[in-house]
Amino acid sequence: MSRKSKGINAERELVHLFQQNGWSSVRIAGSGSSKYPSPDVLASNALRRVAIECKTLTRTKKYFSSEDIEQLKEFSRKFGTESWIGIRFKGMPWYFLSLEDLEVTGKNMAISVVLAQRKGLKFEELIERC
Amino acid sequence: MSRKSKGINAERELVHLFQQNGWSSVRIAGSGSSKYPSPDVLASNALRRVAIECKTLTRTKKYFSSEDIEQLKEFSRKFGTESWIGIRFKGMPWYFLSLEDLEVTGKNMAISVVLAQRKGLKFEELIERC
Repeated sequence: MSRKSKGINAERELVHLFQQNGWSSVRIAGSGSSKYPSPDVLASNALRRVAIECKTLTRTKKYFSSEDIEQLKEFSRKFGTESWIGIRFKGMPWYFLSLEDLEVTGKNMAISVVLAQRKGLKFEELIERC
Repeated sequence: MSRKSKGINAERELVHLFQQNGWSSVRIAGSGSSKYPSPDVLASNALRRVAIECKTLTRTKKYFSSEDIEQLKEFSRKFGTESWIGIRFKGMPWYFLSLEDLEVTGKNMAISVVLAQRKGLKFEELIERC
C-alpha cells in the first residue's frame, strides 16, 4: 500500500471512530496537496469542533515545519476549531497532541514516541475532554 | 468529462471563489458517496461558517430527497454551520438557496431555474450577508 493510501486509511479510521462515538466527522479532500491550508479531519459533537492533522509513521519521531503548524492554527482561527495533531506510530494507538505540547527543535517542531506517550491524549480522552 | 469530474471541478471553483474573497474553504472528501452525511464544501470567514451542498446541472430543475436535506441540516446542527444549496445551471452563475426557499414537491424538494433566479443569492450576496 502506498504511503498516501495508508494516510487516507488512517484518516478514514479516525472518521469512523468519531462517528461511532456520536460525533460528526469528515475528511478534507486534498488536504495534503491543496494550495489552501487545511487539516485532514474535522469532527464535532455540537459542543466542540476539532481540526486534526493526521500522521501515521513507522519511524519513532515526526518533524513538522513551523509553516505546517501555522497553517493549522490559521484554519482553526477561521473555522473556530480546536487544533490537534493525531499521531499513530506503528503498533501503537492514536495519540492526540495540542500544539503547545510539541517539542521545539530549532525552526521545526517534533513529536517522538516518548512525547506522544507522555503528553498525548488517547482517543477516549480526546472526546471526553471539556 | 464525467459527471463526477464536473462536480468536483465546480466544488473546486467554489473553494477558489471563497479563498479569493478572504474566506477559508475546503472540499469534503467523498461527500457524495460516504456513508456519513456531509456537505460538499465548507467555508468560514471567522464570523460565519457555511456548509454547502453543490449541484451543477444542464437540466432546468433539480430534485432533492427529504433525506438529503435532513442530512445537511443534521451536519450543520453538529458543526454550527449555515446550510446552503449552491446550484449552477448551465451557462448561469452560482445561486445559493437556503433550505426554507426550496420548493416542496410531495415528498421531495426542488430548485428550478426560475426559483434560483427569484430566491437565490449570487456569490457576492452570499458572502456579504450578515
